[in-house]
Amino acid sequence: MKRKPRIVIALGGNALGNTLPEQMAAVKHTSRAIVDLMDEGYQVVISHGNGPQVGMINNAMAALSRENPSQPNTPLSVCVAMSQAYIGYDLQNALREELCRRRGKGQPHEDVVTMVTQIEVDPNDPAFQHPVKPIGHFMTEEQAMFAQREYGYLMEEFPGKGWRRVVASPLPGRIVEINAIRTLVDAGQVVIACGGGGIPVTRQELGHLKGASAVIDKDFCSCLLAEELDAQMLIILTAVEKVALHYGTPEEVWLDTLTPEQAEKYIAQGQFAPGSMLPKVQAAVAFAKSAPGRTALITSLECAREGILGRTGTRIRA
Amino acid sequence: MKRKPRIVIALGGNALGNTLPEQMAAVKHTSRAIVDLMDEGYQVVISHGNGPQVGMINNAMAALSRENPSQPNTPLSVCVAMSQAYIGYDLQNALREELCRRRGKGQPHEDVVTMVTQIEVDPNDPAFQHPVKPIGHFMTEEQAMFAQREYGYLMEEFPGKGWRRVVASPLPGRIVEINAIRTLVDAGQVVIACGGGGIPVTRQELGHLKGASAVIDKDFCSCLLAEELDAQMLIILTAVEKVALHYGTPEEVWLDTLTPEQAEKYIAQGQFAPGSMLPKVQAAVAFAKSAPGRTALITSLECAREGILGRTGTRIRA
Repeated sequence: MKRKPRIVIALGGNALGNTLPEQMAAVKHTSRAIVDLMDEGYQVVISHGNGPQVGMINNAMAALSRENPSQPNTPLSVCVAMSQAYIGYDLQNALREELCRRRGKGQPHEDVVTMVTQIEVDPNDPAFQHPVKPIGHFMTEEQAMFAQREYGYLMEEFPGKGWRRVVASPLPGRIVEINAIRTLVDAGQVVIACGGGGIPVTRQELGHLKGASAVIDKDFCSCLLAEELDAQMLIILTAVEKVALHYGTPEEVWLDTLTPEQAEKYIAQGQFAPGSMLPKVQAAVAFAKSAPGRTALITSLECAREGILGRTGTRIRA
Repeated sequence: MKRKPRIVIALGGNALGNTLPEQMAAVKHTSRAIVDLMDEGYQVVISHGNGPQVGMINNAMAALSRENPSQPNTPLSVCVAMSQAYIGYDLQNALREELCRRRGKGQPHEDVVTMVTQIEVDPNDPAFQHPVKPIGHFMTEEQAMFAQREYGYLMEEFPGKGWRRVVASPLPGRIVEINAIRTLVDAGQVVIACGGGGIPVTRQELGHLKGASAVIDKDFCSCLLAEELDAQMLIILTAVEKVALHYGTPEEVWLDTLTPEQAEKYIAQGQFAPGSMLPKVQAAVAFAKSAPGRTALITSLECAREGILGRTGTRIRA
């Protein structure tokens, strides 16, 4: 049997919403876009962000430990694990629903599963010395000082908005469960993996793993997943149809196709916002450079099908 | 390659503890017992309960929604999903640590993965008419009335102890992710699946799935998992070394081997406590009767190795 071309789809925050009711609506919309890609003949593997969700879970666990001192606060890595199931369970069922709808009542359809996924990071990654990634909701100064004192969180003030916890965002090193993911993908399962950039872990002396207080960028992690699965394409779905130069200015120019070299030149010019479009373009460049014939596509959820047909989005390829 | 004999291990509450620090200690101890069984030449598949954990997660999400009204309360099925990752992540890493220790630093060892698992239940299961399974912590009457009014929970008073939420405990019908679990087990992965009895879901008109406000007995679910994976043995690990007649009385008799018919006779006599030893013996009987050559073993975590060697525990086989 000829293998279908394989794509890894990285879903951004807008694909999932900020609260459970938003998520339950968003995943239906997202599932239509994903099944559109399956119906164009691609085998899909899905990864996703978890910013609002892991923040919410972190807050819930902190609220519990304030109410009940026998429940100490929950490490961030455990919250990331929980967010993978929280999102994966909803997303897989929305995908199943869309597949039932398209394939017809009672007809067989593809299986969709969620894998708890850990990512090994380097404990010497310089990111651990400079935590910059804000997570969770804004707090008052009083709440922030409490969190700093009681939980050892690093808190940062965002002028005019309040305080937020900041954590390190190290680069992904190795997908711990890659053999299992590959086995399932090869067996034709639609796999949701590496949620929230994966649970960050560091390798200990014996060779075993320990959770790290960090979050991994989901676009970098998705790039690694796409490389490991030998995907033809990495699709990063976000809120805009294309990548732009001079974004939000009168000189704005939408980009159709870029070589990795062109993209790197624009990155050096500071064209892309850190924490927003920059990591997406960086991940896309890394994927396009990782082997011949690999293409990264950045577009919106709504334009995913048109994007894969080559009619819109920004493509990065050598 | 000759297939190793396969066993499904159902871990009880004592294998996991009640809080995260307890869990982190308990899973180390539990992992030694599990790797003992692997070292006796068995391929293991692991399922586990989640009573205290899903209650704690449910409470945390409720605490958050009291603090932040934009976060509505989280359905029980979502909390079960989260509990699978919460426990599986810790358990898989404790198993990896024990495997690293036994196999030696730098040596390859078996992969361990956690699958988010849903179980289809019958929406007409009479259990939905008679919710009896208490979950979460004890509440005051005031808290209980709040939960009943605000979240529609069914609350029950336990005289002298307080109020608890009770939910339905329907029988497991079908393991939704069984193909993925079987694929991974066949590929030699150590799979943690069906955590907390699985996320209960009911099949909707289109064929898709919707979470149910219920919890499935983890022993019944483990029996189904063992049948589906064609395991030779189902091991139910609990707090006692053997099943007893007249448990806790001067006439107490510890049982070594039972036929399903003998076990059913004792069940009919009311020898086993509902919600405690009864479902374990019922699940063991169901497994032993499901096909020739299948054996169920009920013993303690500490006696697992001696049990599989036939030196202790209670065996049920035709």
